[in-house]
Amino acid sequence: MLLGKVIGTIWATRKYEAINNYKLQLVQPINADEKELGSPIIAVDTIGAGPDEIIFYITSGEAPIPMDVDMAPVDASIVGIVDSINSVIHSGD
Amino acid sequence: MLLGKVIGTIWATRKYEAINNYKLQLVQPINADEKELGSPIIAVDTIGAGPDEIIFYITSGEAPIPMDVDMAPVDASIVGIVDSINSVIHSGD
Amino acid sequence: MLLGKVIGTIWATRKYEAINNYKLQLVQPINADEKELGSPIIAVDTIGAGPDEIIFYITSGEAPIPMDVDMAPVDASIVGIVDSINSVIHSGD
Amino acid sequence: MLLGKVIGTIWATRKYEAINNYKLQLVQPINADEKELGSPIIAVDTIGAGPDEIIFYITSGEAPIPMDVDMAPVDASIVGIVDSINSVIHSGD
Amino acid sequence: MLLGKVIGTIWATRKYEAINNYKLQLVQPINADEKELGSPIIAVDTIGAGPDEIIFYITSGEAPIPMDVDMAPVDASIVGIVDSINSVIHSGD
Repeated sequence: MLLGKVIGTIWATRKYEAINNYKLQLVQPINADEKELGSPIIAVDTIGAGPDEIIFYITSGEAPIPMDVDMAPVDASIVGIVDSINSVIHSGD
Repeated sequence: MLLGKVIGTIWATRKYEAINNYKLQLVQPINADEKELGSPIIAVDTIGAGPDEIIFYITSGEAPIPMDVDMAPVDASIVGIVDSINSVIHSGD
Repeated sequence: MLLGKVIGTIWATRKYEAINNYKLQLVQPINADEKELGSPIIAVDTIGAGPDEIIFYITSGEAPIPMDVDMAPVDASIVGIVDSINSVIHSGD
Repeated sequence: MLLGKVIGTIWATRKYEAINNYKLQLVQPINADEKELGSPIIAVDTIGAGPDEIIFYITSGEAPIPMDVDMAPVDASIVGIVDSINSVIHSGD
Repeated sequence: MLLGKVIGTIWATRKYEAINNYKLQLVQPINADEKELGSPIIAVDTIGAGPDEIIFYITSGEAPIPMDVDMAPVDASIVGIVDSINSVIHSGD
């Protein structure tokens, strides 16, 4: 899974039927320090992430699993909202 | 899913049978500001996107789902046409 | 799917049995202007592409579908030979 | 599979139910010389890797297999902890 | 599939059970001229590739197929050992 921040929402009236009832979030991939990595992707959101929240998302063939349909043409889904990241303290090694 | 713009159509008379009845669009990946990202890919279009339209597409094993066949050797499909992108306003944070 | 050009053939006597009867082509990924993109990959060819032909290929879990076997350890297959690319004329926008 | 080092743990109370009982490790991809490669990813850990341990992980659709559930929205899992890497000695070739 | 060279072996006593009986090779991706591409990956070897041999490997969800188990948390497998590459002669075009 990858870390990201919700930076917007996609509006699309003409789209494949199976994704009609799902929110499509614009997600900026970030690293653990919230630095932006590459370009935003579009992910289905079944968790209810709000703007600017740090989330993690999947991008494989498992992406449709959080949805209530058998199959869906989806390759990225938000699966959790990050409370905190407990990093290994490298300075004390 | 990723954002892209339809920039052309691929013509191929010799191709795998299961994709014979599908339109193959040349899609330029873009970011939310319509800046080009990398090189164009080829995506099956079952939505009816026109030239220069902003679309979003999937690239995983779910790509054949919008098609009317059980299996198809396809790894990218257009699944929606973008009306607008509602971005989080960062300047007001 | 991605555009590529057939630039060679791989010979391998010791290989996994399910791919024994398939031609393994060395394919150089290219863009719509035939500019080379990255390094060549190896793709199964069930279409009969010849040297220097422009083809498109898939790289996902659907790659084994063009083959006559149930399962095959294959992650790239040539699925069509390009006749022409009909690009959107940007200069007239 | 790719080499990585466990560099932290992700805490997320709001997440997709199927991953509720799994530890989510922050993993820094590394090469065989422990040099960092790109940005950290998040992987499910069913092996019990500790902080700073060298592990290898998978990132494909097989990632949910180590889990005790039928399906899970997971695209990266730790599958082993590295004891040592026995490299080919190139200097003696 | 991608070209690679076997450059080492991974030893891991604590690992997911389904891969216990398989050799894990450290593989350096290369191009057709044996130039190194990126960082090494870890691939299951069911073919018996030796050190420094040129092989090709798959990285998709089909990677577990060469193994004798139904499912395995594996995303890269060696599927053939390269005898030779018959390149298109570009100088004579």
